[in-house]
Amino acid sequence: MYKLWNALNKFKDNCEIVDLSHPVAPESPLWTGFEPIRERVVYNFKEHKFLAKEYTLASQNSTHIDAPGHFYEPGILLHELDINDMILPLIVIDKSKEASENPDYTISPEDIIEWEKEYGEIIEGSFVALRTDWSQRKENFNNVDEEGVAHYPGWSIEACEYLIDKRKVKAIGHETSDTDASCLTLKTGWLDVETYVLSKGIYQVELLKDLYKMPATGSIILVSYPNVIDAPGFTARCLGIKLK
Amino acid sequence: MYKLWNALNKFKDNCEIVDLSHPVAPESPLWTGFEPIRERVVYNFKEHKFLAKEYTLASQNSTHIDAPGHFYEPGILLHELDINDMILPLIVIDKSKEASENPDYTISPEDIIEWEKEYGEIIEGSFVALRTDWSQRKENFNNVDEEGVAHYPGWSIEACEYLIDKRKVKAIGHETSDTDASCLTLKTGWLDVETYVLSKGIYQVELLKDLYKMPATGSIILVSYPNVIDAPGFTARCLGIKLK
Repeated sequence: MYKLWNALNKFKDNCEIVDLSHPVAPESPLWTGFEPIRERVVYNFKEHKFLAKEYTLASQNSTHIDAPGHFYEPGILLHELDINDMILPLIVIDKSKEASENPDYTISPEDIIEWEKEYGEIIEGSFVALRTDWSQRKENFNNVDEEGVAHYPGWSIEACEYLIDKRKVKAIGHETSDTDASCLTLKTGWLDVETYVLSKGIYQVELLKDLYKMPATGSIILVSYPNVIDAPGFTARCLGIKLK
Repeated sequence: MYKLWNALNKFKDNCEIVDLSHPVAPESPLWTGFEPIRERVVYNFKEHKFLAKEYTLASQNSTHIDAPGHFYEPGILLHELDINDMILPLIVIDKSKEASENPDYTISPEDIIEWEKEYGEIIEGSFVALRTDWSQRKENFNNVDEEGVAHYPGWSIEACEYLIDKRKVKAIGHETSDTDASCLTLKTGWLDVETYVLSKGIYQVELLKDLYKMPATGSIILVSYPNVIDAPGFTARCLGIKLK
């Protein structure tokens, strides 16, 4: 009867929980097309003897999950995702060095194959996160140059095709606010990689934080979000679980 | 290296995840002093080729977590809660029969002592949930009578004192929208039990769903919420984990 509690004790003794989500506040990273979160105090201690607020926030505020229906019209929405996909094996592909040397770095299938040579084949049903250390940036999050052009790293369609078709991953994630490397968006004027990924029916998490704290392989991610009916996405709480 | 992944496989084979949170929509249960969630479509497929929305919702919308600072002014707020307290052993005290016979049923320390005689002492650091099957109600959620008086079950201060001081629980939860049984609020005109619980520095979850699906003892609860800075609470996703 106490099998699960024993497992929980063992878990708490041996594992560390890492918050992979940004705190939610007006200064949280956010795609430029959205307004920051606003709050209104509805009840306060002085007048009402308790505190309650009302929040207004974008479906893609701060660290957030995107349901397929965010960029693919027939795609499922947040409440239609499988609850069992909230806990997945986590793979972290570290391209932080490459991104610091070249902020337009675009991850290719060859990068992933190289990763697999070192760490083993990416297992089916995993969550693959692209580490660029972009979550450590304090200002000019999108690295906009003097001509107004953004320079931030991201995925290519080919890399995502490899992960989704060949490795059958359940989800991908990244520290930037877009799936696509900014240089790809500049070429086509559209978020082709994001459209591709979500059209395949998997979910993604954007604006992940502190991926540098997680190992390349062998850890777990827990992706949780309020179950908002018909939402294209919502602010998510993502916890990384690793051995101490 | 794959120790955690093996544990995850075993977990997925042997455990069932039960959603203990209501979906979030305008019709979700809500304390009468708040407005239901509103949404505004900010980007749509026809004009923008993608879908994004903006939501306005109360800090205590639908199934939600209350931080101590919700009813106790020096109490900590949402972002100050310990991330490790998001995963706790779950105890379910079933008073559904009593609540159906007497909707003003108020759980006493004697009820808890009786429960402990059957199932063993409530372990330190657990989450204790009061099952009343109130989450199954389809209309008149607060069971308001012809004279406008609400009748719904809840906790007493003495029962919570027993749990917090003697059993050192980390959190409590219930299926109604208040900690206090409505008959207690009617007497004093205030939510004394809620004030007491939150003044003790623990968190609580209100408007839990489907506690009848969980065993009395031996299961786990995962309480997750967006990490909103300085929030008195927020909509929570609560998952029950039990053996298949």
